[in-house]
Parts: sequence; structure tokens; C-alpha cells
Amino acid sequence: MNPAAASTQNFRAIDVIRKKRDDSELSREEIESFVSAYTRDEIPDYQVAAWLMAVVLRGMTRDETAALTDAMLRSGEVLDLSSLPARKVDKHSTGGVGDKTSLVLAPLAAAAGVAVPMISGRGLGHTGGTLDKLEAIPGFNVNLPVARFCRVLEACGCCMIGQTAEIAPADRKLYALRDVTGTVESPYLICASIMSKKLAEGIDALVLDVKTGSGAFMKNENDAVFLAELMVETGERMGKKVVALITNMDQPLGNTIGNALEVVEVVDILNGRGPEDLRQLCLELAGWMLYLGGVANNVAEGKKRSQQLIASGEALRKFRQMVELQGGDVRAIDDPTKLPQSRRTTAVRSPGSGYIASLQCEQIGTACVILGGGRERKEDSVDPAVGIVLRKKVGESVTAGEPLATIHYNSEERAERARELIEASYQISDSPTHEKSPLIHRVIGSGENN
Amino acid sequence: MNPAAASTQNFRAIDVIRKKRDDSELSREEIESFVSAYTRDEIPDYQVAAWLMAVVLRGMTRDETAALTDAMLRSGEVLDLSSLPARKVDKHSTGGVGDKTSLVLAPLAAAAGVAVPMISGRGLGHTGGTLDKLEAIPGFNVNLPVARFCRVLEACGCCMIGQTAEIAPADRKLYALRDVTGTVESPYLICASIMSKKLAEGIDALVLDVKTGSGAFMKNENDAVFLAELMVETGERMGKKVVALITNMDQPLGNTIGNALEVVEVVDILNGRGPEDLRQLCLELAGWMLYLGGVANNVAEGKKRSQQLIASGEALRKFRQMVELQGGDVRAIDDPTKLPQSRRTTAVRSPGSGYIASLQCEQIGTACVILGGGRERKEDSVDPAVGIVLRKKVGESVTAGEPLATIHYNSEERAERARELIEASYQISDSPTHEKSPLIHRVIGSGENN
Repeated sequence: MNPAAASTQNFRAIDVIRKKRDDSELSREEIESFVSAYTRDEIPDYQVAAWLMAVVLRGMTRDETAALTDAMLRSGEVLDLSSLPARKVDKHSTGGVGDKTSLVLAPLAAAAGVAVPMISGRGLGHTGGTLDKLEAIPGFNVNLPVARFCRVLEACGCCMIGQTAEIAPADRKLYALRDVTGTVESPYLICASIMSKKLAEGIDALVLDVKTGSGAFMKNENDAVFLAELMVETGERMGKKVVALITNMDQPLGNTIGNALEVVEVVDILNGRGPEDLRQLCLELAGWMLYLGGVANNVAEGKKRSQQLIASGEALRKFRQMVELQGGDVRAIDDPTKLPQSRRTTAVRSPGSGYIASLQCEQIGTACVILGGGRERKEDSVDPAVGIVLRKKVGESVTAGEPLATIHYNSEERAERARELIEASYQISDSPTHEKSPLIHRVIGSGENN
Repeated sequence: MNPAAASTQNFRAIDVIRKKRDDSELSREEIESFVSAYTRDEIPDYQVAAWLMAVVLRGMTRDETAALTDAMLRSGEVLDLSSLPARKVDKHSTGGVGDKTSLVLAPLAAAAGVAVPMISGRGLGHTGGTLDKLEAIPGFNVNLPVARFCRVLEACGCCMIGQTAEIAPADRKLYALRDVTGTVESPYLICASIMSKKLAEGIDALVLDVKTGSGAFMKNENDAVFLAELMVETGERMGKKVVALITNMDQPLGNTIGNALEVVEVVDILNGRGPEDLRQLCLELAGWMLYLGGVANNVAEGKKRSQQLIASGEALRKFRQMVELQGGDVRAIDDPTKLPQSRRTTAVRSPGSGYIASLQCEQIGTACVILGGGRERKEDSVDPAVGIVLRKKVGESVTAGEPLATIHYNSEERAERARELIEASYQISDSPTHEKSPLIHRVIGSGENN
């Protein structure tokens, strides 16, 4: 502890800590001062850690949540994309397994005339990350400076990069501290973290995909709905159109988990093929993006237009254009066998016959991390080639010895550990299972703000 | 934040934080590991700050409180006074205004044959501290090393020093962190802090004086009782005899506030004179110390014996002996006019006639701090000579112009600020007031442990 640091801002910081501890509502000014002082390193980590724990246990009002989001948003640069005539719309997912929708949606919505300035994250824990998937494309550069990001966006209507130092620096500091102080799990802090970064992109509208189920961070649907409502209300208070779809993450989305394998599936979808659940979710989210982006009169029209853009090849061409503008090798889009390939594959075979009753989604994600396809710590590097292709999903019938999944691997030892997890993930029952839970549970918000 | 520090012990520390955050009971081993790692600087302040806030808001079970006390106690040296044949008994007060009972009780109990190894603190905020009072005696040394402390104790049966680096270092680190993170106000943390230091003294029994009222940290009697019960139970679990007296701090104890002025009053009491409330509380606390110390068969006998020791002059001689052994100038005991004297005094006169209805006790303590007799920050030095002598206390009648109090001061400007506070502290009513609250509200525990 640095007593000097403690004493400089001490009176103010400790008053804010005590007030939250005692369950009083903080004013916008108090939150703004606290966040901006912390961003300038004028409040020590230990004071902020105590405050964060008080927030986790006391919660926040809607006003406090909006004030925190606003303070974090304004801790850094807020992009001004007003020179682009199109409406700026982004999509954000709270993270899942096999969720590669962003790679489909950015070019799809851009092809429809919406501008998509997408700043994404990396995978952490059992969930994948958009940046890791993009980097499976040889040469693809996710670290563009803001000026270049804007030029790509102007040229092709979408651009996908990682967080820059200029965007919401308070969130980066706060997130690192939350990670080591047991203060990640607060809907108020999660909302402020997500919304501050997204709103700093200079967007007009946002479509949120809030996952719930065994593979999601929020296992419980009520928690997912609570967070979704919080984010929608917070975004609307800041003058944005926001909707949230509560979607199922009881099993991986699509059939592939692993970065290059997921890009293959993205290209499949953009070619009008690919697994039904992934296509369905992409069209639903795209429908909302087109509607909020003002290029469709309603969601149904947005979905229809999206289907047409896939069928005509325009969505794929837009993806190819973005890959090229961001330095990626477009031959890997034209011929996905040019993407990184693992040296070996092996099948996980069914121990019995019956029906797939359930799939432990988080374990499948963890199996991919074990193969080297994800990271347990931020500093880990990922192997783009490895991963898992699911051959059977919930509700399907299987006979003993039939493949449940194929493991793409570069290390025998890791493949064996992954195999155990995958085997254990599949629950097989004798009788056909109860109907699957729907892919889209609910929609929160109407996008009718302003 | 130092990420290296976070990662070394990260898994363990964060699990302990999360468990407390989620309101699960921590095991003795978890608390022990957490406290000892922090003492060795192996857990960063920010993790401990988050944990402390979780403890403030979630509370602790009795088992957890005992485990925390034990871990803090064993973070440093625990004195072994088993070579002394007498039972070792200490007294601790939660802090008040004009509370100089420790200076009376240590020699009084020692004169009765109890050993009193007393490690005390300094004043902070509006409350006075035993060490500051002792240091008003020219030459008195409160910074004895442990070996010398034990020799004085052996020679005269009592010794009064400040906390050493060896005793409960975890408490020192934790307290400094609590002070700047809004985590002071938790009965569990207060209990562990007090009891770990006191039990490290190697005592057999402890008499607690838990103050309640306008001049106490715990304004609310229920809070005081809760803390008292917690401390008694924690001490008993550790095999000690412990009682707690809930005593009134609605007005200062005795008539003097200020270090040298309080020593004068201590000598008065030891001479069989002095104010009634102070004498009464000293006898009550001494009665308990003698009973728990095994030199009286019950509290009443302990009180009677204490009165005799005062009447015979033995208690005063013991005080004189301790002062001499700790380097103090005994002439100041024989002739209190040799204690530090302020350059000037001034009377605060009553603005009207009537009865003293109440006295804002914390304000009187603050007035003494303003005069220079206490400290607002740990690093402030104190002026032993300044202070306040109360001429009127609650229930007494007063006529307009009569002195309410006398200010002993060395700075006109400070005296004026103190005067305003003192004047505002006195509430005068036309009619005799409702009866005074009793000095001793309740006794918690029986001291019948073991």
C-alpha cells in the first residue's frame, strides 16, 4: 500500500466507498470523479477494490449504472463517425462456445448498407473470442489504429478490430482489478464494462446477444434477462437504440469450435450452407441490425434481405473485401483448406446407442482450450488450427461406435485430455429427449428509442 | 496494481474473497492462510481490501471471528508470562472522552497482587489515548522493548507500553488498510483487532469496557452489546476469562480532558479524592479485575479490596513505582503542579440559568483535539498541557455567568474555536432533567470460563 497515494485523494475516495457500503445512492458527480481519478492513477487499487466489492454486494440503481457507464465511456476517446452517412450498428455477445456470428454479421449488415464499427475481444476461459477467430485468417490484422479503422469502415462498411488504448481506458483498468478481486460477477459492472466500450465506438444502435445455459457465463435465464434489461435501459438512456436477444447456449452454436474451424463454418454460412442453428441466429440478429440500421422496415424484412444478400453472394464478397482491407489472405476465404490445419484428427466415438440428451457446453469449450485453441490466461497464445467438430448435437440419434465429434489436434497428450472431456460432455439416453429449448428465448427492448 | 503479486497467491486469495462474497463460511485454514500470506506481503492490498469489504457487508460467523482473531494473534510474538506466578489480567476500553481509568487500574490491580501487562494505544479522533496521557509525565517511556516490559512487570506487577512491532503485525497492516478503505466499521473486524492484540499479551483474563453514547464510537447501545458479546465469546473460545461492561459515554468521564490534566485526576483518584463517576467506574472495573485475577472471591470483594488499597496509599505507591521503573519523573506524581501546565486558562461561562440537560461528548473531545491535546492524524504530535476542566456536568444546576468549563490553552486562536464547541456542547434546560442514564448499563459474560 502506498500511503501517499491514499492520502492525496483520500477524503473523496473514502467518502464514495463508505456511501456505497452504506447502501446510499452515489451522485453522477461522485461516480465521475471516482472513475476519472482512478483512470489518472490518483486513487490506489485497494480503494477501488473495496468500492467494487461494495458495488457487487450492494448493487447500483439505474442512475448509478448509467453514470458509471458514461464515466467509463468518457475516460477515453469516443469515435466520431458522423461523417459516414449510414447508421452505425454493432452487435455484442456475452460469450459462448462456437459463437462465430460476429464474423457473419459484420459483412452481412454492411452489405445491406449499415455501417458496422466492431471492436471485439479475445477468448477467455471456456469461451472463444472474435479476434482469435479473425487471426486464424493468415495476415488478418486486428490491431489497426483508429484512423485506419475509420478508413476501412468507410471503404467497405465494416471493420473488425481489438480494443485500442484510446477506447475506455477506465474499463481496462477496472476489468484487470475486478479479475483479481472477485468482483467480476456483478450485472451492474458487466453492463458498464460492455456498454462503455460499445458506445465509445460512436454507434447509433446496438444488438445484444445475451447467452444463457450451460455454456454461458449466466447459467440462469433470470440473470441473463436482468443483465439484458440493464444494458438496454442504459443504452436507451444514452440515446441509442438497443435490443437484447436472450439466446440458448446449452450446446455449442454450429458444429465447430476452434478458430480456423469456425472461420470455415462462417464461410459456409456466407455461402448459404452451414448448420441450421447458426444460420437461424445469424439471420435473426442480422434482421435486428438491418431494422435498427434503418435499411429494413421491420425485423422480418431485415431477415429476408439478409437471406437475399447471402444467396446473391454479396455478403461473402463483403467479407472478402474486409479481409483484404485488413491485410488477410483472401485465398483462405476462397478455399478454406488454405486456413491453418491441425496435423492430425481423431474421432470421439459413442459408447452406446440412443439419443443425445444433452451436451455439457462449458466442458466442450474447455476441451478446445486444452487443445490449445483458447487461453486460460490472458498471456497465453492460441493455436488457430486445433479444435472440435461436433458430429452429433442434442436430439440426434446415435449408434454405438458412431463418431460424436472429431478432434483436430497437434498434441497427442492434449487430444487425450480433450477426448475425456468431450466423452463426458455427451449424455446419451435410451428414448428421444424432451424437445430442445428454443434458440431464441426472448427479445428485450423494441429498438424504438428516440 | 502489481500483477506479479496478484498471480503468486492468486488462486488461493481470490477463492477466499469469492467465498466470503458469496456468503459461505470460511474455514479456519483459509483464514489462517489468508492472514499469514498478507502478513508476509504475499497478497496485495487490493485483494485484501476487497475481502475486507466483503466481511463488512457479509459479516462473519463466531467460528470465523475466532479464527481471524487467532490468525492475527499468531501473526507475531505471543508473550509468555508463565514464569510470573500471578494471574495476568488486562483491561481494554473501546475509547471515550476523559477516560483515564487505565492509569488507575493498572497500579490498583497490581497492588492487589494481579499482574497487569498493558499494551495500549494513542488517541485518535475525538478520543484520548492511554499512551499520550502517560507521556504527559516527564520522562515516562512507553516504548520499552518486550524484555524490559517483562522485567518491569516482574518488579512491580504492572507495566504500560505501546504496541511493539512484534505483537500482532497482521493487525497493524490490516488496520492501516481498513482505515483507508471504509472497512473500519465492522464488529467482527473490530473484535479481531482488539482481541488479537490483547491475547498476544499472554493474559489469563480480560475486562472490557465497551462505551456507548454520544462520545463513544458506538452511539447505539445495541451495537455496543453486539460487539461486547462477540469479544467475550471470542476470548472464551480461546480459553480466557472475559467480561465486558457496557458503560455510559454520554458525557466525559471525570472532569478533565487533556493529557496532563487527566494525570492530575488519576493521582486524585489514587489519593481517594476525584470525581464520583470516575471513582465508581474504576472501582467496578477493578472489582472485576481482582475477581478474574483470583485475588477476590467475587466482584464486590474485589471492589472493597480496591477501596482499601486506595485508602492505604498502596495503589498510589504502586503507580509511583511503575512511573519510576519506566523512567518517569516521580516528583510530578507527588506534586502534580510539576506536570506540564498551559500558559493560560479561560472560563467558558453559562449563557443562562437552569440545569445541564446534556453534554455533546464527542464535541468536547474534538475541542480538546483543537487545543492540541489530541490528534486528527496519526502523525500529529500532542501538547500535554492543554485541555478542558468541566465545572458542570449533566443534571447540575447553573446560573448565568457561572463557569461551565475552564480551557487550558497555549494558543488564543485555538482557545476561541474550542470555546465555541464547548458552549455548543452544553444543553441547558429550565427544569431539572430526567434522571441521568446509569454509568454501567450492563455486564456481558460472567468470567466463569474454564
